[in-house]
Amino acid sequence: MKRSQIVAVLGERAADDLKAASDADMIELRLDLATEPIQTIKAIREATEKPIIATNRLQAEGGKFQGSERERIELLVQASEYADLVDIELQAELREEFISQVSRPVIVSFHDFQGMPGIDELAAIKERMKMAGAAIAKIAVTPRSLKDDLDLLEFLLAADLPLCLIAMGDLGRHLRAVAPLYGSALAYGYVRESTAPGQMSLAELSSARELLKW
Amino acid sequence: MKRSQIVAVLGERAADDLKAASDADMIELRLDLATEPIQTIKAIREATEKPIIATNRLQAEGGKFQGSERERIELLVQASEYADLVDIELQAELREEFISQVSRPVIVSFHDFQGMPGIDELAAIKERMKMAGAAIAKIAVTPRSLKDDLDLLEFLLAADLPLCLIAMGDLGRHLRAVAPLYGSALAYGYVRESTAPGQMSLAELSSARELLKW
Repeated sequence: MKRSQIVAVLGERAADDLKAASDADMIELRLDLATEPIQTIKAIREATEKPIIATNRLQAEGGKFQGSERERIELLVQASEYADLVDIELQAELREEFISQVSRPVIVSFHDFQGMPGIDELAAIKERMKMAGAAIAKIAVTPRSLKDDLDLLEFLLAADLPLCLIAMGDLGRHLRAVAPLYGSALAYGYVRESTAPGQMSLAELSSARELLKW
Repeated sequence: MKRSQIVAVLGERAADDLKAASDADMIELRLDLATEPIQTIKAIREATEKPIIATNRLQAEGGKFQGSERERIELLVQASEYADLVDIELQAELREEFISQVSRPVIVSFHDFQGMPGIDELAAIKERMKMAGAAIAKIAVTPRSLKDDLDLLEFLLAADLPLCLIAMGDLGRHLRAVAPLYGSALAYGYVRESTAPGQMSLAELSSARELLKW
């Protein structure tokens, strides 16, 4: 099993924050949080050899991109030139068109900030991600009980493609530290402030990796 | 839900090690690991106001006590005078007699260093502990897969009495940090060296408590 990678999520002050991300294995640039997204990703590309994930998160899935869907996708295609992987939402209107245009491995993502679909539904979502050509399937949901957390870990154990599983909110927060042991491919952490409910800092993820030995 | 307690396991050099156990909520003295067990528990009783668990572990369950079963039980009864709780194995030949003699709350314990009984069998063990008058049921088993770990956490979630659940060995090690979130009553840690497979140090348990917020 490949070791889980710690991903530093960078946004508005990405160039500054990169220095504080030296413990991370990878960098995610949230284009939707950056004022000058293309300049920023170029600067990061020049400053680091770590793999970069370019993400331009849809508002409906927790992002802040303001323009049209066409503009969002165009920016992401443009940014992909400086990235190693790109992230696109399963539900993005122009997902297929986008995937056909980029030459990078794709993280296909799904977010539920309100709750958590049943496990059968999650399995169907994962299957659609696989059919869409996901190199990594990223599923971020909000468990409503500790039993939901256990169901998520069991789902993760049974995954038939690289899966990044995130349990958002207080009840799922500990899975940020634990899911990597069950095979979650990526662990996202923040440098300055959390970009998702219950997200841990890079320092917390590094402590978790050392403590729990993943 | 009552917060899980961190228990410092002390043995041969208990009096010295007590100083290093200031972060622990409780102290367990392993009488079977101490050269002068009664003197030692008296010294600890004088030195701390933290609750003390007296344990005289049976060889068959990972202990080092050398005398007869009668001697083992007599030592434990004697030590109970200086303790707040006592630990007795479910399978101890003289368990009932012992419990009738002591006036402290009893932790009834079960250890499997080779593997893990099925969940139905664990439920039966827990039921026997309850019927035996356990204030806390302590179940320490050795999971053989990550799925076993999830089954253990689910078992813990459903418990109808205070349960201390320990997953021994490498595959279960992370549950030392995580089981408290699922309701495990006690988290045992060592000061100097591990007294059980996969056990964490007190410092590691304190980090886990801070990181995972239990």
